[in-house]
Amino acid sequence: MKQQKMVVNKDLQYERSRCTFDPVEVTYFFDGSAEKTRKRRDQEQYFLDDLVLKENLAIKYKSHKELYEDNVQITRNVIHKIRELQRSGKADIDLITNILVERLGTALFEDGTPMLLHYAMFLPAFAPILGQANSEQQAYWLNRAWAGDVIGTYAQTELGHGTFLRGLETTATYDPETKEFVLNSPTLTSYKWWPGGLGHTANHAIVVAQLYTQGECRGIHLFVVQLRDVETHEPLKGIVIGEIGTKLGMNGVNNGFLGFRDFRIPRENMLMKNSKVLEDGTYVKSANDKLKYGTMVFIRVRLLRLLLNYLTKAVTIAVRYSVVRRQGQINPDQPEVQILDYVTQQYKIFPYIATCFAIKATASWVWNMFYTVQKQLRQANHEKIPELHSLSCCLKAVVSADTAAGIEQLRLSCGGHGYMTASNLPTLYGLATAVCTYEGENTVLLLQTAAYLVKSWKQATNGEPLPESVEYLNEAAKGVKHRPWSNDLERLIDAYDAVAAGFVRSAAEHLDRRIRDGVPMEEAWNQTGIELAQCAEAHARVFIVKTFAKAVKQLNSKSEEFRQVMSQLCELYIIYWALKNVGNFLRFSSMQKEHVETLHSRLEYLLMTIRRNAVGIVDGFDFDDHILCSALGAYDGNVYERLFQDAMKNPLNRETVNISFEKYLKPFLKSNL
Amino acid sequence: MKQQKMVVNKDLQYERSRCTFDPVEVTYFFDGSAEKTRKRRDQEQYFLDDLVLKENLAIKYKSHKELYEDNVQITRNVIHKIRELQRSGKADIDLITNILVERLGTALFEDGTPMLLHYAMFLPAFAPILGQANSEQQAYWLNRAWAGDVIGTYAQTELGHGTFLRGLETTATYDPETKEFVLNSPTLTSYKWWPGGLGHTANHAIVVAQLYTQGECRGIHLFVVQLRDVETHEPLKGIVIGEIGTKLGMNGVNNGFLGFRDFRIPRENMLMKNSKVLEDGTYVKSANDKLKYGTMVFIRVRLLRLLLNYLTKAVTIAVRYSVVRRQGQINPDQPEVQILDYVTQQYKIFPYIATCFAIKATASWVWNMFYTVQKQLRQANHEKIPELHSLSCCLKAVVSADTAAGIEQLRLSCGGHGYMTASNLPTLYGLATAVCTYEGENTVLLLQTAAYLVKSWKQATNGEPLPESVEYLNEAAKGVKHRPWSNDLERLIDAYDAVAAGFVRSAAEHLDRRIRDGVPMEEAWNQTGIELAQCAEAHARVFIVKTFAKAVKQLNSKSEEFRQVMSQLCELYIIYWALKNVGNFLRFSSMQKEHVETLHSRLEYLLMTIRRNAVGIVDGFDFDDHILCSALGAYDGNVYERLFQDAMKNPLNRETVNISFEKYLKPFLKSNL
Repeated sequence: MKQQKMVVNKDLQYERSRCTFDPVEVTYFFDGSAEKTRKRRDQEQYFLDDLVLKENLAIKYKSHKELYEDNVQITRNVIHKIRELQRSGKADIDLITNILVERLGTALFEDGTPMLLHYAMFLPAFAPILGQANSEQQAYWLNRAWAGDVIGTYAQTELGHGTFLRGLETTATYDPETKEFVLNSPTLTSYKWWPGGLGHTANHAIVVAQLYTQGECRGIHLFVVQLRDVETHEPLKGIVIGEIGTKLGMNGVNNGFLGFRDFRIPRENMLMKNSKVLEDGTYVKSANDKLKYGTMVFIRVRLLRLLLNYLTKAVTIAVRYSVVRRQGQINPDQPEVQILDYVTQQYKIFPYIATCFAIKATASWVWNMFYTVQKQLRQANHEKIPELHSLSCCLKAVVSADTAAGIEQLRLSCGGHGYMTASNLPTLYGLATAVCTYEGENTVLLLQTAAYLVKSWKQATNGEPLPESVEYLNEAAKGVKHRPWSNDLERLIDAYDAVAAGFVRSAAEHLDRRIRDGVPMEEAWNQTGIELAQCAEAHARVFIVKTFAKAVKQLNSKSEEFRQVMSQLCELYIIYWALKNVGNFLRFSSMQKEHVETLHSRLEYLLMTIRRNAVGIVDGFDFDDHILCSALGAYDGNVYERLFQDAMKNPLNRETVNISFEKYLKPFLKSNL
Repeated sequence: MKQQKMVVNKDLQYERSRCTFDPVEVTYFFDGSAEKTRKRRDQEQYFLDDLVLKENLAIKYKSHKELYEDNVQITRNVIHKIRELQRSGKADIDLITNILVERLGTALFEDGTPMLLHYAMFLPAFAPILGQANSEQQAYWLNRAWAGDVIGTYAQTELGHGTFLRGLETTATYDPETKEFVLNSPTLTSYKWWPGGLGHTANHAIVVAQLYTQGECRGIHLFVVQLRDVETHEPLKGIVIGEIGTKLGMNGVNNGFLGFRDFRIPRENMLMKNSKVLEDGTYVKSANDKLKYGTMVFIRVRLLRLLLNYLTKAVTIAVRYSVVRRQGQINPDQPEVQILDYVTQQYKIFPYIATCFAIKATASWVWNMFYTVQKQLRQANHEKIPELHSLSCCLKAVVSADTAAGIEQLRLSCGGHGYMTASNLPTLYGLATAVCTYEGENTVLLLQTAAYLVKSWKQATNGEPLPESVEYLNEAAKGVKHRPWSNDLERLIDAYDAVAAGFVRSAAEHLDRRIRDGVPMEEAWNQTGIELAQCAEAHARVFIVKTFAKAVKQLNSKSEEFRQVMSQLCELYIIYWALKNVGNFLRFSSMQKEHVETLHSRLEYLLMTIRRNAVGIVDGFDFDDHILCSALGAYDGNVYERLFQDAMKNPLNRETVNISFEKYLKPFLKSNL
């Protein structure tokens, strides 16, 4: 990629010169092929060319309001470019998501964009397969939303309810007289709260509300609602709307609140692909509820890619900085040490390099499975939905938790400078940790997977066959004795199976015992919650480990050196996470105390081996400096120059003396002399 | 304490009515006595009365520059009040630190104050015992700094060097002709970078620089340097100064950079309590280097109290919110559940309630030891310094890591609303995680403790007696067989000993083996780094566990109920951290696989038991709403009202239509129709 032209730091040059493989192998692995890499690079360059970037506007020094205004300006320019691409037939929703959120997202916008939900949630709601709209609605709204005067968002979460959808309080009551729905926010807690772009950007929203018709509540349904006048942008009468305020991160997203006071919308605005309300108010229930899972699963699968994007950036920054930074001495006769030569530093960073590859392999696998399931759905085959749903839940939870913890560890590995916004690590952390909460809170998701696992365990004990991802439960249920320990990787992967199965068995037994003791099912479930969450975590880990190992086996690169690097990373991942949870392995697998030391030595060996290629690997993630946005992580390694340049953009530094001296400090200091 | 007058949420009322003990017991435990509680409350109220608070200024919505200016204004008002107290003889440095940083800090200032280092580092440098100044210097500078026209900071860290002090590059070269030191910043990396208040607030600094005299480098020494004109506040000629920019947190601290260009200061400005430079340039080395540890240890001990303050606030917020928040159902016939009734939620929160008490007990113990050591030092008895130093290192590292991770877990337990600045959790996290890096990076500190432990291990194997905190190594070195497992707490505490000893032994042996294999000592140390850090962590944990258990035993409260609560919390702490690291216990202690399940059941029992008193306990932390600064954690539990009130302060919400609509969105949307 095009990089800023400064002289490249000598240490980085040396690291690149001694890399054993061609970093472009990594790039192809992540993009999928050389052809896809070329295409992505072209697209990224197209967007980076002649756009005003957030770094030039120094938005981070501005007020919350100015941040919003700058972000709208940038968004306008970006969408302008998207439309140009569309005209030449080169834009699809995938590209747009990449631009707005994934690789380019953090380059273009300061901490998110208010138009994100327009593309990520509003438009997909009208998509032919995934969406909830019937075909007339699709045609009408897609047309307006792609090209016209509609900016949309998706208003589900309320002040009082997030993950528990049944608790939502907004009401849409059908009035057969006027053939309209009347929307209301009956309580303070029923106010919509959180939707991106809702504050001051969107003029329409898909609103999730409890449907009432013919005097009965029919549960939650979706409605397209106009919020603001298309000409003046003033909120319509009956709409109370605004922005919810500053947050840990994502301050550029314009999250909003929304209340309704007897606000009327036409009957046609209910999304009626599945359930319907007829003109007279008769409610027609959907034949197929399972389809609803589609969107949720789709979004969680995309989130894996989003998280991967955050983590690869953070790892790139930490590795490059750790090669440039010299601090302290190992040998008193030698110059100061590159901090990446400290084994403790390698231990903080390299497992997360490996984690990037693990997430990539997992995300690809789930993405493919998602498309398979979509195809099956069209043939009314719903067989794989429960498995896919349960996987998407625990993978979203574990990958978001790993990514957030990883970015934080990487940030801390950069010392004080990692704490600076200029490192870009705080922003990446704010984006990543949010994923632990949105689109299903992680613990709630783990418990959903646990329900599937407990059910599968019962099937296994009954000798029923199980889908591939839970097949390991069969062996455990049969009481097959663990194979004795040996130090090869296959045995360690077996041990992951044993750990997950051990947790599932233990949670299922404790659940049963409580029920036998007379505890009601739901309360017994709650009392077993800690273990249930643990078994879902262990299940996700075993799935990631196996998928990663399979991806390494099936790697079609011709480079022996690259295949070796991949093997090392895979082994590191498998050993690292086993040692992190070594108690589980000692409890549930055939691993014995004395094996722990052997594994630890192997871990130390792998860190040492990967050290040489660390820079090459992260170079292969192929981030343009404008996309990485980090003074610590730039390709040329001019860390200190960039930190200084960044500080010079601070408006406080435009004056040698701040006004607060004359105004507050001086009179006061003198008063006491 | 005085609280805002709203109707208290019914759920909170109920929780308070069923608490089994009087929460004021907790307050007395944390303050030390009823008398101290009264005094603290008076002082806090005195500062809260008639001050403009950050919440009224809605600073978080403002720009970085405005944030600085507002903070200076508040600081002026606060110092005015401090001076009033001083005049009436009621102010000491302890009170001031409390006000500026600990309990009141987050209430008064937005994300720190630029005057912090004036009180926390500049003034103490001139303190009679701790400081490095001789008695004339003490008299002169203390007088000016307390009352007069000097605002100071402490400039040690540079762009290129933090924890590794010997690497600092700023030079102070003595010129016997003029009897001056000439200060220079020979490289970009030698610029001072990070000192709080340095940007635009301080007019003096204590500068750490490499002393050159008579052509020789004499290592780092301290110098008082005037930076700005006392009248105009303009930087003096030869001083390059400014602010370093935005950060993950602490944006109100005005961290600065500083460069010198042949800047001259009088010889008297070197702090000469220990080493000296005579008029002719002769260097006289200090007789006693050990004294230098004093300040570092003192600050690390204070940091434990600071961290405790952050964590108690976060726990208070999470508990109160979790009682008010109702979400989801356990029993379908019942109303929605208080989220604190989910065992998974208790598991996230209660161990950190227990951790607060553990940190409190530990901080008190170390504080007392610090004073004992100070007394001994005055009698030239340095015996306890290595032990105190090694404890202060690992305790700072482990307590800061626990606190940061804890606040993050507590924030996540509050779901989406925890992500909002209005919860105050993001700010608390930003403050706490910074402690992992400043005043000695955590990994570096752990390795310092490890050096002490490895040395102690050698002494133990030689049969030499050891100080109290490492006595457990003696037994392990003697090869005393572990007592067989039983389920009482004493045995579990023994197991903590065994784990720490096991890690120390293992690290020491691996270190030795590497050296025997011909690896140079320093490199062998590096190669064993992961294990060495682990043994220091285990050592800190065993110390905290024992100190907490001792504090519970020695508790002099007359309330049986409170003593019971303390026992439960102590047991929870001990079991929670054992299960978190259960692999170590299975490896190094007599704990067997089958005991893990028993411990887990006991943990579940403790969570259930503590549930009833959770609100009472955090009420006992006694935070005024203005000090807690959290919409989620206020005493009255009006969570949603406060979130809404806070959003109304958002300047974006003053206009229904933001200017960016007319400017950017409208012309653009229309263009495509």
